[in-house]
Amino acid sequence: MSERPPEPISDLGFARVDHDREARNGVPEVVFGEGKRAEQISAIASRLLARHQRALVTRVDETQAETVLRDHPEGHYDPISRLLWWGQAPQQLPGSAAVICAGTSDLPVAEEAAQTLEWLGVHAPRLNDVGVAGIDRLLAHREALTRADVLIVVAGMEGALPSVVTGLVNSPVIAVPTSVGYGASLQGLTALLGMLSACATGMSVVNIDNGFGAAWQAAGILRLAARGVHEMPLHFSSSRESSGS
Amino acid sequence: MSERPPEPISDLGFARVDHDREARNGVPEVVFGEGKRAEQISAIASRLLARHQRALVTRVDETQAETVLRDHPEGHYDPISRLLWWGQAPQQLPGSAAVICAGTSDLPVAEEAAQTLEWLGVHAPRLNDVGVAGIDRLLAHREALTRADVLIVVAGMEGALPSVVTGLVNSPVIAVPTSVGYGASLQGLTALLGMLSACATGMSVVNIDNGFGAAWQAAGILRLAARGVHEMPLHFSSSRESSGS
Amino acid sequence: MSERPPEPISDLGFARVDHDREARNGVPEVVFGEGKRAEQISAIASRLLARHQRALVTRVDETQAETVLRDHPEGHYDPISRLLWWGQAPQQLPGSAAVICAGTSDLPVAEEAAQTLEWLGVHAPRLNDVGVAGIDRLLAHREALTRADVLIVVAGMEGALPSVVTGLVNSPVIAVPTSVGYGASLQGLTALLGMLSACATGMSVVNIDNGFGAAWQAAGILRLAARGVHEMPLHFSSSRESSGS
Amino acid sequence: MSERPPEPISDLGFARVDHDREARNGVPEVVFGEGKRAEQISAIASRLLARHQRALVTRVDETQAETVLRDHPEGHYDPISRLLWWGQAPQQLPGSAAVICAGTSDLPVAEEAAQTLEWLGVHAPRLNDVGVAGIDRLLAHREALTRADVLIVVAGMEGALPSVVTGLVNSPVIAVPTSVGYGASLQGLTALLGMLSACATGMSVVNIDNGFGAAWQAAGILRLAARGVHEMPLHFSSSRESSGS
Amino acid sequence: MSERPPEPISDLGFARVDHDREARNGVPEVVFGEGKRAEQISAIASRLLARHQRALVTRVDETQAETVLRDHPEGHYDPISRLLWWGQAPQQLPGSAAVICAGTSDLPVAEEAAQTLEWLGVHAPRLNDVGVAGIDRLLAHREALTRADVLIVVAGMEGALPSVVTGLVNSPVIAVPTSVGYGASLQGLTALLGMLSACATGMSVVNIDNGFGAAWQAAGILRLAARGVHEMPLHFSSSRESSGS
Amino acid sequence: MSERPPEPISDLGFARVDHDREARNGVPEVVFGEGKRAEQISAIASRLLARHQRALVTRVDETQAETVLRDHPEGHYDPISRLLWWGQAPQQLPGSAAVICAGTSDLPVAEEAAQTLEWLGVHAPRLNDVGVAGIDRLLAHREALTRADVLIVVAGMEGALPSVVTGLVNSPVIAVPTSVGYGASLQGLTALLGMLSACATGMSVVNIDNGFGAAWQAAGILRLAARGVHEMPLHFSSSRESSGS
Amino acid sequence: MSERPPEPISDLGFARVDHDREARNGVPEVVFGEGKRAEQISAIASRLLARHQRALVTRVDETQAETVLRDHPEGHYDPISRLLWWGQAPQQLPGSAAVICAGTSDLPVAEEAAQTLEWLGVHAPRLNDVGVAGIDRLLAHREALTRADVLIVVAGMEGALPSVVTGLVNSPVIAVPTSVGYGASLQGLTALLGMLSACATGMSVVNIDNGFGAAWQAAGILRLAARGVHEMPLHFSSSRESSGS
Amino acid sequence: MSERPPEPISDLGFARVDHDREARNGVPEVVFGEGKRAEQISAIASRLLARHQRALVTRVDETQAETVLRDHPEGHYDPISRLLWWGQAPQQLPGSAAVICAGTSDLPVAEEAAQTLEWLGVHAPRLNDVGVAGIDRLLAHREALTRADVLIVVAGMEGALPSVVTGLVNSPVIAVPTSVGYGASLQGLTALLGMLSACATGMSVVNIDNGFGAAWQAAGILRLAARGVHEMPLHFSSSRESSGS
Repeated sequence: MSERPPEPISDLGFARVDHDREARNGVPEVVFGEGKRAEQISAIASRLLARHQRALVTRVDETQAETVLRDHPEGHYDPISRLLWWGQAPQQLPGSAAVICAGTSDLPVAEEAAQTLEWLGVHAPRLNDVGVAGIDRLLAHREALTRADVLIVVAGMEGALPSVVTGLVNSPVIAVPTSVGYGASLQGLTALLGMLSACATGMSVVNIDNGFGAAWQAAGILRLAARGVHEMPLHFSSSRESSGS
Repeated sequence: MSERPPEPISDLGFARVDHDREARNGVPEVVFGEGKRAEQISAIASRLLARHQRALVTRVDETQAETVLRDHPEGHYDPISRLLWWGQAPQQLPGSAAVICAGTSDLPVAEEAAQTLEWLGVHAPRLNDVGVAGIDRLLAHREALTRADVLIVVAGMEGALPSVVTGLVNSPVIAVPTSVGYGASLQGLTALLGMLSACATGMSVVNIDNGFGAAWQAAGILRLAARGVHEMPLHFSSSRESSGS
Repeated sequence: MSERPPEPISDLGFARVDHDREARNGVPEVVFGEGKRAEQISAIASRLLARHQRALVTRVDETQAETVLRDHPEGHYDPISRLLWWGQAPQQLPGSAAVICAGTSDLPVAEEAAQTLEWLGVHAPRLNDVGVAGIDRLLAHREALTRADVLIVVAGMEGALPSVVTGLVNSPVIAVPTSVGYGASLQGLTALLGMLSACATGMSVVNIDNGFGAAWQAAGILRLAARGVHEMPLHFSSSRESSGS
Repeated sequence: MSERPPEPISDLGFARVDHDREARNGVPEVVFGEGKRAEQISAIASRLLARHQRALVTRVDETQAETVLRDHPEGHYDPISRLLWWGQAPQQLPGSAAVICAGTSDLPVAEEAAQTLEWLGVHAPRLNDVGVAGIDRLLAHREALTRADVLIVVAGMEGALPSVVTGLVNSPVIAVPTSVGYGASLQGLTALLGMLSACATGMSVVNIDNGFGAAWQAAGILRLAARGVHEMPLHFSSSRESSGS
Repeated sequence: MSERPPEPISDLGFARVDHDREARNGVPEVVFGEGKRAEQISAIASRLLARHQRALVTRVDETQAETVLRDHPEGHYDPISRLLWWGQAPQQLPGSAAVICAGTSDLPVAEEAAQTLEWLGVHAPRLNDVGVAGIDRLLAHREALTRADVLIVVAGMEGALPSVVTGLVNSPVIAVPTSVGYGASLQGLTALLGMLSACATGMSVVNIDNGFGAAWQAAGILRLAARGVHEMPLHFSSSRESSGS
Repeated sequence: MSERPPEPISDLGFARVDHDREARNGVPEVVFGEGKRAEQISAIASRLLARHQRALVTRVDETQAETVLRDHPEGHYDPISRLLWWGQAPQQLPGSAAVICAGTSDLPVAEEAAQTLEWLGVHAPRLNDVGVAGIDRLLAHREALTRADVLIVVAGMEGALPSVVTGLVNSPVIAVPTSVGYGASLQGLTALLGMLSACATGMSVVNIDNGFGAAWQAAGILRLAARGVHEMPLHFSSSRESSGS
Repeated sequence: MSERPPEPISDLGFARVDHDREARNGVPEVVFGEGKRAEQISAIASRLLARHQRALVTRVDETQAETVLRDHPEGHYDPISRLLWWGQAPQQLPGSAAVICAGTSDLPVAEEAAQTLEWLGVHAPRLNDVGVAGIDRLLAHREALTRADVLIVVAGMEGALPSVVTGLVNSPVIAVPTSVGYGASLQGLTALLGMLSACATGMSVVNIDNGFGAAWQAAGILRLAARGVHEMPLHFSSSRESSGS
Repeated sequence: MSERPPEPISDLGFARVDHDREARNGVPEVVFGEGKRAEQISAIASRLLARHQRALVTRVDETQAETVLRDHPEGHYDPISRLLWWGQAPQQLPGSAAVICAGTSDLPVAEEAAQTLEWLGVHAPRLNDVGVAGIDRLLAHREALTRADVLIVVAGMEGALPSVVTGLVNSPVIAVPTSVGYGASLQGLTALLGMLSACATGMSVVNIDNGFGAAWQAAGILRLAARGVHEMPLHFSSSRESSGS
């Protein structure tokens, strides 16, 4: 009869913090900082820290960070990745997610990915400035690349690096287009469309500059590898008349 | 001195068949049928079947299929998924990749994904016609969804289904926009951009109508789960001066 | 424990027919015909007619219609609106929804709206070919326009008619852009964007050529007027800390 | 012979204030503040307040507001909704228009809608931060949602919330895309196109960030419900040869 | 009280023929043939011919033309310009409107312009295939170009010709982009945007492939030159407080 | 043998001032100020004033204007139209070009047109804030509109005003889209495309916010009306084999 | 006094054939076949063959070719490249222009380039199906690539191949995007924008599918290499006040 | 076994400097300054200067330049071209690359091209402000243009100049669109697409505002002309079964 939401959600009026998420996958909800006022971030962080003892906020500029850290001084802020965080993963996941980056200007996005991975307990070795216009810089690390369990490949401009990397490895590749470039690069749209059009099989794509999203996906894959697949075969009751051949 | 490529590649002049791919990840190269003439497909299939005893061609129309099957009659063709294949995976991978589909018109893309998975040796239960405008159709299967190890979510129009599914599960989600819709759906571009913009974390996206690509990525994730991560920590020698905090 | 969906949904494998919709708002689910094979439409229609004794399918071409009508000959098909329907609304809704149409080429969309309204039990007077380039054709009906309870305004090319009509009346206006035009009209995108940018207040917009959607919205408004608003004030429990002033 | 406009319009040279609008629907003309200089707003407000004793200006920044309030100090300004207003509706309309908001960053647009509704005399309960990626936050209020007479659903990024809400209720839904998001969200264009492409029937859409327009449309629907439909059947004399079936 | 439109408009139900237009500017309404069925064109032509003894229909394909000419055999049809017409202008306008065309593939649009001009009683000399990549072909006619009273310049691909021509003459230039080209020409959008961005002053632009619209505008300019300007100075009563300097 | 350009052009290295233009049409070259440094503008103005005793610079911001006026203090600057000018037309052209403006925010563009006309010696009555959403504001001036010899119609948002005005008059209409609006108005692109798609015949279009270009075209039309058309019929020698009917 | 063009141009009314081009650079004008009727092509070919004894027509479909070859049977037609030609270059240019092609589906464009080169007297070795997703196929030819004097690199989808090739060689690279791909490849626009955004220096780009244009540019470069640069230093008289540092 | 890259690359962690490039083509790697912090530029410059005694950085703003020049004071900075450089080419290349520029506002891009050419040892005569709207300014230099060995043509707005220039000369033309313009020029996209669509053969295109890239390509062409083509015919071993005619 009551409309009151169940306990796992903290209702702040302007925001609803989902505490159940940690129960589901071991990680508390992450806050997207852009477009939120510092006080809103601070209020959400309070709830998260009280319950989970750790928190991560993405896309925080230096002014926001300063204000929030005044309330919660035990956190860390990195001006390159623009991440603000408290605490860390209770344990390290086995395996590694390599973060490969085409150019120096793509570093902020690559670091958002790499530091998010580290906060999630994932080993995240970096390989920077290996864009395809000087392919030997990449090929010098060919053998190492094949030993990464997941790869996040970050590139702006024409966004060609993920295609080449995907062709060199067998592990899943997550491609991150960046807004680096000018003119025909259309603020990253060209790299994004290029990655989606790529002929290489075995890669998928996230939004422009979304290093965080790629890291989350990569960590999810490693978490699956760590726990192993479900034993019982899965069936949906409805599939009896599937229209496939 | 000689330019002759090393043996692992069959040079047909108009195409180079990469036989090494099976050595690398246990699956022979897959052929993209669109824009190729039936005789070209047939010639490539000959090389693949001679070497690997199985082959998969995507985006084959009925006329192409008929011609190719005349040369290689032991194959199968499904007019819905437009896949043409011979043989099958030598063994089944553990786990399952669920294929969730928003509407009846999205079925060809969903079946391209599901049948590719099956050819790759992956169990692929289907859940069709569960678009978000009638959310109860999806929620009726909520518990089963959480038991899928990977999920491929196929949707056209506004492409909202992957966001909702990603919020219900902890496994990696691969979203496939389709070209189903009209007007503002811009031949699938709206669904594609929507999926990339989605607020849900834990999903990545492939090209419009690219059921095959999603299946390949899902199979790669299950293959990683099956073999386990690499034991030795990975380091790139260059990361000593990484500019991260 | 069982994944079997609750009874209100007919599971056809490739489609799930939602029978509950009639319980909720007195109208059975409507079928979008484009991209479905005639046999699929026929199967869905069977379920709907068995349960509700009426059905509506939109975007049906003549070939599809012929095939479906062979199975269900008691239906009607209009080649202009491309609607295929069986039965009619059990009772007429009070009031009227006028359908105003800018040019002769916009008629198929206007008729999709008008005939859908009639199938839903709404009186739908038409006013055709009153585009803004000859404003007197519209103004000749000014007084009548103000007596419509809802107005659906259909226009292609620059899509200016809804702005003008909205300024003449006080009733809600639903604007429908059409794909009529060439060159800079970009298959209806220009009309769509124009209607959304319009300075007139009191109108909202549906997808290009979506006469059906506009009719559904208009009928919903008249249904609300017929039943009256809810008596008890509505409150969401969470709004206690709303961030508004 | 004279070109002088009839009395109902105040001609300020740079603007023409339409006083008749209140006669027509009980609400004086609303001023769009963006791109107008503070003195222009002030001059228009003078005319409106002299005649109607109330006024509403949208899209006012803090500097504009301060200047205008110096001339007309009895007004109110909310920096979140960016609305500036004087007076209020002479009486409350029956019923309610719920304002549902996907994320915290969408609040300014949601508040523009909600506060406009309140100024128009409409009860406007809010439900904030119930984006589809955590569907339970929305479903917790499912029963309450069905009691809203009209719903305004505000969402940025992929804009999926209106589709889901529309599937849960029978009342008319007005969807408002916002410019919240980055990269592939294209300043709100992706959400806008997604809402227009949505498979859910029963919703229409307004311009990006146009909370005001949605509120106006919602109020118009409630005003229709309050006054009831016209009794006499409406006919346009021209419809005798309509080309429909 | 009656809604019946005043006599100057023939109401065909699906169309309203505006007979007053001839009274206003000496030319009966012109019919846009695309998207109309042959019977609709025929019915409209009947009304026009009965009243004005001449008519023009644009964008008519050969099948439509054949059907309509069966009803009204005294007309003419040109398959290049796709114009269908009856009768001609009662008298010739003084002066000339030159039609300049960049390439052979642009001829259908140029002929639509030139033949429309001739039907309107305007002398329309042609200069074909003088695109800017071989500037001497154009410059050979430089002196003649300056003697045209109005110029219509038709070009596809990059659409550069109007800029060059405008720089050579003092008369008004109307630029017509065409859909000729491929790839980056985006079906004429590139030529359209290029003409609008042109640095040359003294030209304006019509829609892609809209030879008819350019001809109408050019004829209007010559009609103004023929009748001379209005003698009495024009004033709008409202301009007393114009905000200009 | 020498590459030195003929005398009519002043070569400043970074710019070439075309003095012949005045010989050709009685008006010296106009300078586009945007993107030029104040010293460049000043140097060009020096050459123009030395030779022609008058000059016009468009798109000048207040800082540029101040600097240039320090060198050439006899000029005038209007911060609304952003025009900077010296001197005036030696004589007034007969007739008038009305400048019609949809909304208060479009005034800067309308004033750029109107003041350019005045500098060119054209009578330019204004009619402001007559957008189509309140059509009576426009119709109140209907009779006066028909007495304008040329009309410049300025509108942003959906850009519908030129269609309506063109339908009311017989004189040539030049439509100017403005960048006024937000969201779906795409910085004026929607208004631009709408005007080009308009069903009204007798209008042509210039670039977004290009009041200057519209004024120049309008003045050219009035100049043609003033001097009359050329007497001798124009023929291009090449037209003997024109491929038209 | 006469407007008759000078002799080097054959005026066919619908086309002007430029015979001087051979005098200028040793190659007669080439005809773009798309959008021209077979008789027009035939007439132009007649003029070219009469004067130059050789001709090339691009973008000819099989039906056009058959008709034209009936009139001029000594020509050749290739259905893959869609080229139709007569005769050949009087002598071979020294050096070679390699044509590198990413995928089998790009072959028609690559062959248009290669066969045009051959008709122009250029040695054009091909390297097909070496897309970046299998980088070893390309690297196997690394040493040979550096011996090409000019390289034409043809790729669809994400268009990444030219970046990689440019990084491997020192010779000029001309990149040709193709319309091969689907969904996000936007008919070649993605490849085009990607190539333009590429970080590799030393490449320039031609239109989508424009193999002919790339060949022409490559031949021009080799022609320059063959004749050597101009001896006398070039100066424009105007550069005395260049605004560079 | 070791992952350490071979000596020719300096690994700075955030960047890899490719010293081999000078060995390959006589020019050290050039640094793209935009988006890099001044300290990063400084560190890269240190490596380059230590090894090659010269360096070039593009797209440097005045603040960056000041900081970098404090560390490396022997360099030069030009605020118009935004280039920062040290040292110069060891020897001058024979021939010349003319830089032709449409308008004064395009100068920064033209100077980026011209000064890059000079740093590369190429004679680069400029011809400024010769846009097509006053074609005589260009034609005055016609004879000189034909003596340039390569031409770089820089234009914004409609970007028509390269088409005209290409038609006047036989040397290779590289077209550079600029972001100069407003409204329909879409920040240079219109000029870019126009140049790619151009009917003139013999030109290729680089990215918007990419004067540097055009210069690099032009220098590469002159370098080829200086060294002469390779003597030995080039063959790829694989071309034996090429699918061309």
